[in-house]
This record gives sequence, structure tokens and C-alpha cells, in this order.
Amino acid sequence: MKWKLDLDSKIPIYLQVVDYIERRIMYGELPPGSFLPSERKLAEQLQVNRSTITTAYNELRAMGIVESTTGKGTRVSTQMWGVSPKFAPNWSGFVEGGTFLPNLPLLRYIREEVQQNENIIDFANGELGCDLFPHQQLQAILHQQPLTQSLSYDHPQGYLPLRKNVAKYMKEHLQIDATEQSIMITSGAQQALHLIVQCLLNPGDAVAFESPSHCYSLPLFQSAGIRIFPLPVDEHGIHPDDVHELYRKHRIKMIFLNPNYQNPTGTLLHPKRRETLLSLCADLRIPIVEDDPSSLLTLENKKQTCSTLKSIDTNGTVIYVHSLSKLIAPGLRIGWLVAPQSVIERLSDARHQMELGLSIFPQWIMQQFFETVPFETHLQQLRSKLLQKRNVLVDALQYSLQEELSFPMPTGGIYIWGKLTQPIQEKQLTIQGLKQQVAFMPGSIFGAKDGYIRLSYGKVDINDITEGISRLQKAINFCYE
Amino acid sequence: MKWKLDLDSKIPIYLQVVDYIERRIMYGELPPGSFLPSERKLAEQLQVNRSTITTAYNELRAMGIVESTTGKGTRVSTQMWGVSPKFAPNWSGFVEGGTFLPNLPLLRYIREEVQQNENIIDFANGELGCDLFPHQQLQAILHQQPLTQSLSYDHPQGYLPLRKNVAKYMKEHLQIDATEQSIMITSGAQQALHLIVQCLLNPGDAVAFESPSHCYSLPLFQSAGIRIFPLPVDEHGIHPDDVHELYRKHRIKMIFLNPNYQNPTGTLLHPKRRETLLSLCADLRIPIVEDDPSSLLTLENKKQTCSTLKSIDTNGTVIYVHSLSKLIAPGLRIGWLVAPQSVIERLSDARHQMELGLSIFPQWIMQQFFETVPFETHLQQLRSKLLQKRNVLVDALQYSLQEELSFPMPTGGIYIWGKLTQPIQEKQLTIQGLKQQVAFMPGSIFGAKDGYIRLSYGKVDINDITEGISRLQKAINFCYE
Repeated sequence: MKWKLDLDSKIPIYLQVVDYIERRIMYGELPPGSFLPSERKLAEQLQVNRSTITTAYNELRAMGIVESTTGKGTRVSTQMWGVSPKFAPNWSGFVEGGTFLPNLPLLRYIREEVQQNENIIDFANGELGCDLFPHQQLQAILHQQPLTQSLSYDHPQGYLPLRKNVAKYMKEHLQIDATEQSIMITSGAQQALHLIVQCLLNPGDAVAFESPSHCYSLPLFQSAGIRIFPLPVDEHGIHPDDVHELYRKHRIKMIFLNPNYQNPTGTLLHPKRRETLLSLCADLRIPIVEDDPSSLLTLENKKQTCSTLKSIDTNGTVIYVHSLSKLIAPGLRIGWLVAPQSVIERLSDARHQMELGLSIFPQWIMQQFFETVPFETHLQQLRSKLLQKRNVLVDALQYSLQEELSFPMPTGGIYIWGKLTQPIQEKQLTIQGLKQQVAFMPGSIFGAKDGYIRLSYGKVDINDITEGISRLQKAINFCYE
Repeated sequence: MKWKLDLDSKIPIYLQVVDYIERRIMYGELPPGSFLPSERKLAEQLQVNRSTITTAYNELRAMGIVESTTGKGTRVSTQMWGVSPKFAPNWSGFVEGGTFLPNLPLLRYIREEVQQNENIIDFANGELGCDLFPHQQLQAILHQQPLTQSLSYDHPQGYLPLRKNVAKYMKEHLQIDATEQSIMITSGAQQALHLIVQCLLNPGDAVAFESPSHCYSLPLFQSAGIRIFPLPVDEHGIHPDDVHELYRKHRIKMIFLNPNYQNPTGTLLHPKRRETLLSLCADLRIPIVEDDPSSLLTLENKKQTCSTLKSIDTNGTVIYVHSLSKLIAPGLRIGWLVAPQSVIERLSDARHQMELGLSIFPQWIMQQFFETVPFETHLQQLRSKLLQKRNVLVDALQYSLQEELSFPMPTGGIYIWGKLTQPIQEKQLTIQGLKQQVAFMPGSIFGAKDGYIRLSYGKVDINDITEGISRLQKAINFCYE
């Protein structure tokens, strides 16, 4: 409930709460039977004494609008004037239906805690910090560039001038050849993955992805009834032999890979394995979906960006997915996919059914960015800031947790994949961390076996890193006691 | 293929075409076995002589890159260097899979023809013309307002300041009470409908909607395996008795309605039927999804906007869906839905899985619009321009087609629903219309029985209307001969 009390008002705070909840029930937003937040939680959110909320809830109970059962909480009365439960649709029945599975509970819990407590130092979030976004350049574009494009529905594949710039960008920065016809602009990489799963796969199909992988945190595969099989990741990424084995056993139809600075392990797929893998998948005619949000976030050997699978794919095996969320800003929601024209047409048609295409504004802004901002300069600044953050994090870990946590040094991207040297209950550690006001991702979210955590240095303020790791140390020590 | 020839280049045109197609094959965009456009079509698109394309295709054939079979067209050779078909995934197999049905072929055909021939006078398109968009005001916002909001991922329900403005807007213009917690910003009304179908319904569920309805043109219901039943529309909209009957026979679980200036018939659901319907659906506990893109487009009785079902719903039966596509611009992609909080949370979570939320930019722009532009003034200008266009269209129809076409006068919205007074083959009429360079929507697209067409005065230039109707007259006369 993000609603503000009027502290200057002559109406007592508790009555403001009563009035607010009463209106929400009247509007049908809280149907009969639905739960109010707990008194403790609402008091925290509104930053008032818990007794104020208790008074408000007592008042609502006295009015007969809500009812409480010990241990179950307070809910909207099922015997109410106006909104009688007899007449409201059975919303909870509807909400439990549908073909979309909800997000993982632990993931939601971490997100909610971080959202509600700004004192938490956040190594969980996989995005960049606001100081890394090119805010000024975007502001300058809005101020200076005339809005000349049409405001009609966009082309199903996305804004043509942007697709042309994307083709140029991929040629220059990713050594990928493509024309604008085989590029589809998407709402980030996530929409690209969603469309591929929904349109190219059928329920029951088998696919493989890295283990661990951020794909495990995405319910989209299970929602679509896809069977998933793991490809274990070592320090050089997945092993092509495992692909062959999964094909033999389960006839996998597609592979989803994140070969560059993999999420969550930070590994680079070895060049030799890339070649073997491409040749094997060509033989087996298995498409590879290359999810590549970070290959440009090289932190060492600045001149040498790691190559993409797509750039060395001579058989047309790879569907390439890119995103600007980690290069510009996630709020922009711009990514794209590159695929054979027939695939692009199918996916564009499906998206057209879902939302009649993308908004023209973020696409126009990004196109202006490509045309007016030297991208290489922007990238260099971004890499240098990320490198500083990585180094501070690595120093802090080596100083505070050298005994407790081991990790390979990431040469790019924004993740450190830490292995706890002694057995630990991950869920307990996560909750203990949040109590100590530090957030990270437990490995189980990515399908890893016990004892791993992912620390991201993308979002966290560089000045908070050392304090954050000291809190993590406390949480780990608490769990070991 | 939207690619441009370099007419000033020293390289002959036909060789530019050869080079372009060769590159597209090499990049994997046109895999072995895929068809090139016909010589005629490509010549039209590139605006060159057909003989140039013939020369280019001959060259490609001579190189062994493409092969032609009489009657089947030209396709990429299956015996090629590099891109051997043995190695490329079976893309056509993938494209035929998935759970999304493609759009209706006739609809796609009309859209493609209109897109490729700018001389067509377009009564088919259901959007507003570019002259009706508040381009200047949007430009002013970009130039003047500082971009102060964060560029991180957005709240799953959408940008909070915008949701607050939406609540205010609905109160002022639509007499709807809601708080920001029960509003979810969507990528137009289409995304709202898609989410409702995907998350609240299960395959096999029965739902009802108006007949005719634009819902028939949306494959999203069939894609989700939903059974659909018609509620016939007369001059006062649907009849509540039919709802009862469908519930009795098929246990319909939800109703989708467009009660205000319905698409395609332009009818207003009668106030008495609204009351009966709401009371009946409350009794049966059937939710109504009110799809309401046009209730503010009142063209007569300017002071009296027609009321929404949601504004008189006291039982919490209605999920309300609104869109700014017909009030601001479709390229903005801003709409929203209003529902009980549990429903909003479910749909937001599902969208998060699909695309990690909406872009912040269109939402920020719309929020600035609400804050800086007097909406009522904007609406009045829009209504007055639409009224002029409606009147010119009505005059033209009465002058040219009085015998051939009858229609009720629309009092709002942008559609005229015409009944052909004599039997006619609709598909033939549509194709004949396109030949005469006039486009409209055949009734069959909306599930209507033979003999109806929908004419929109939203997009068409006011100065082209009379000529367009004269072309329609020719097409009709041709079909009657």
C-alpha cells in the first residue's frame, strides 16, 4: 500500500487509515474475504506507531467492515453492505487459474524486502546502478532532438530506423552480420525469450540450458509446459558432450545459452568448446538461443571483447538475443533478437496479438542515442566504473571472507559466484542477510546445489560495498554458530 | 524487403539486388529452401523495372544460389556452399509450432496492401489520423520537462506517478473510483486483454462476447484454447437474457464487452440493459471485462459522456480496460486495467515474466501530459475534428450509396457499420475495393453474417473521404454486375 498520510491534516491519522481502507473496499479493490496487511507491516510501511494501526483496525471491526481471526489476520467482512460476497465473482478462483506460473516465492521475498527497506545494501539486483545510466545524454536527446516520427502503431518488428542502427551496432561491436529484416526489437531480452518459448516450442518439448542458469529463476519455461534439462557449467562453461548426451536421451529441441560472462557464474565459454558446440548443433540441427546481455562488459583486456557464438555461426544455427538493460538502462526496455526471416515474422505476428507492438518512444530515443552519442566512449566509461566496483568488492571479500568464500575472478560482466567453503543452509543465510540489511542471491534460485551465492556489483553504491560485505560476514558467522 | 537501392552508385542496379540477396542468405536470414519475393512484387517494392529483377534472379540462379520451379517461385538453393540445409535447423517446423495462432489471413492481406500502396484511401484502419495526435504538446513535453525519474526497472504495475494521474483522470472523466493500487498500466488495451485471458482463464473455459465484435479478429482467445459464444448485438447492444441462456447452457465464466460505441457496430448499450446485466452477472458471479477505448469520443450531446459499466458497478463485477490509443496516439502504447488487488498482482507478476515491465519513457511522457496539458480542451478539439469527418463520410454515403448501403448514425466513436442492401460476396468486394484503391473491413472479420462492412473515419484524411466513397461505389457496382 503506497499511499501517503496527510500529517498536517486535522483528521487523526487512524481515521485517515480507516477512510483509506473503507474506500478501497467500496471501490471493489479489496473484495469480501481478502486480507488486509498485518498491523505490523502496515505500521512499518506508513511509518506510524503500530498502536495507530491497531486503533484503525479496531474502528473498522466496530463498523463491521472487517473481521479478525486469531492467527489468520484481518480480512474484509464477508457480510457487508453493498459489496456482498454472494455477488462478487470468486476472484481467488480466477487468480489461481491461467497458464502462467507465479514467480519463485524466495525471489519475490528478497525483492519485496529490498524494495521496502532502503537501508539494505543490495548485491542481489542484477541491474546497473543509476549512476551508470547515461542520464545526461538521454536528457539531452529529449531536449534537443525534434520528434519527427509518426505516432501510429509501429512496424511489427520494431522501428525501422532503430533496426538499421542496430544492424550497424552489431557489425561494429559484436562482429555480427544482419540486415534490418532479420532483427526484431523487443521489450528487453526477456520478451525475446518469452516469444521464442511461446511460439517455437510446444508443451512437452525438451530443451537444455546451463546449470546453474538464471533461466531457472524464470517460470516461463515451466509455464509453457517445456521439459528442461541441465548442462553443467565448469570454469570454461558447458561441455558439448553433454549436449550430445541430452540429445540422445531426450531429443532436446533447443538450447538456451549465455556464453559470455554467464549469469550467475561469470564464466566465458571456451573458444574451442564454442566451435565444437556449433558444429555439433549443426549436425543435430538443434538451434541455439544465445542470450547475450553482457559480452560488451569486458573488464580486462579492454581491446579484446569476447566473441559471440552468432559471429562465428556459419550454418544459421543461432538465434541471437541482445539487451541494452546492462549497457544503457533497464527502464528503457530495449533489446532485440536476430533470426531467420520466417522466425522473425512469426514472433512479430505473435507480439502483435499480445500488445500491438512496442511503444515508439523508447525506440526513438535509442535510435537518437545511436546517432548522437559515441557508443565506444560510453562503453569505456561504463567498463571503467564497473571495474572499480569489481575491484572494491574483490578486495572486501578477500579481506573479510577469505576463509568462508571462494570465487573465480570475473573478467567481465557484473557477477561474482561465491562458493561457501563450509556447508550452510542457504535459505537461512538469505534471511539472516536481510536481517543484517544485506541482500544477495542464493544459488538455489539458479538451480545450483547448496552452498553458492551470487553477488552483483552492478547496482550497489561503490561506497557501500565494504560495509555490505562486513554485514554478509556477520550473517555467515551467525549461521555457522 | 525494405532496403534501398543506391541509384547514384556505379554498381548496376541488378548487381546491387544480387549482392543484397546473397548477403541475406549468407547471414542465415534466408535459410536454404526459403522463398524469395516474386519478381513482380520485388520490382514493385524497389520501384524498378521487372526486367532488372529478372536479370538479378538469373544471375543468382547462374551462381547456383537460388533455384526456380515453374509455378512455385524462386527459392534459396538447398545445395549450397556454407549454408547447407543438412545443417540449418528445420525452421519451418519450429515456426509452425507454438501455442500462438497466426492472425487472420484476410486481415493480414488488407494490412499489407494498405501498407504497400499509399494511394489507397483507408477506411479499414481503426486508429486516428496523424493530424489528430497531440504532436506539438508531446514535443513540448520532451523539450521542456526535466527527466527526473529513475531509469531502473519500473514497478510491476507501472509507473506510480502515472497511476495516480490515471486515478484522477478516471474520477474526472469516467466517474470511476479507484486507487493507484488497483490500476495496472498496460501496453494498450490489447495487452490487458491478453493478460486476462492468459492468467485468469484456463483452456476449455467458456466466455461470451458481442457478435459482431472486434474480439473475433483477435486470435488470442483461440490461441489460449478458450471456447467463445456470441451475444448478438441489436441497436441497443447485447441482451441480458442471452447472457443468462449462455450461462445455463455453457457455464460461461467471463464476458467481454465493449458497451460504448461498440467496435464494429458503433452501438451504445442501453442504460436499462446495463443495470439488468450488472445485476444478473452479480447473481451469477460472472465477471465482466469492460473494454472501453472510446466512451470519451462522444460526438453529440457534448456535455453528456456516456457512462461506463464500471462507474455503476456496486458489486465489484467489472474489470475495466481503457486505452489512450484513440485519445492520444497508438504509438504511445498506454492503456490500463482496473481490477481487485489480487487480480492486479497476478497480472503484474505474469507481465513481469513476459517482459520485466513496461518502458518508463512512454509512461513518463503520459504523466507529464496529464500534468501539463488541459485534457478537456484536448478532448474537445479531438471530438470536433472527428465530428467533421463523420459528417463528411455520412454525406458522401448518402450521396453515393443511398440505395446500396444502410447504416445507423453513430453518436460517438469512429465507426460506421454499413449493411449492404443486396447480397454480395464480401471477400470479392474487399479485393475489388483494394483494386479501386479503397480499403474497409469486411464484416466477416468481426464474426458478422454476410453483407456488412465497417468504415472508420478515424485515420482517413477528411479531403479524401468523398473520393474514397466514390471508389467504394465503383467496387460495389462491379460486384453487382
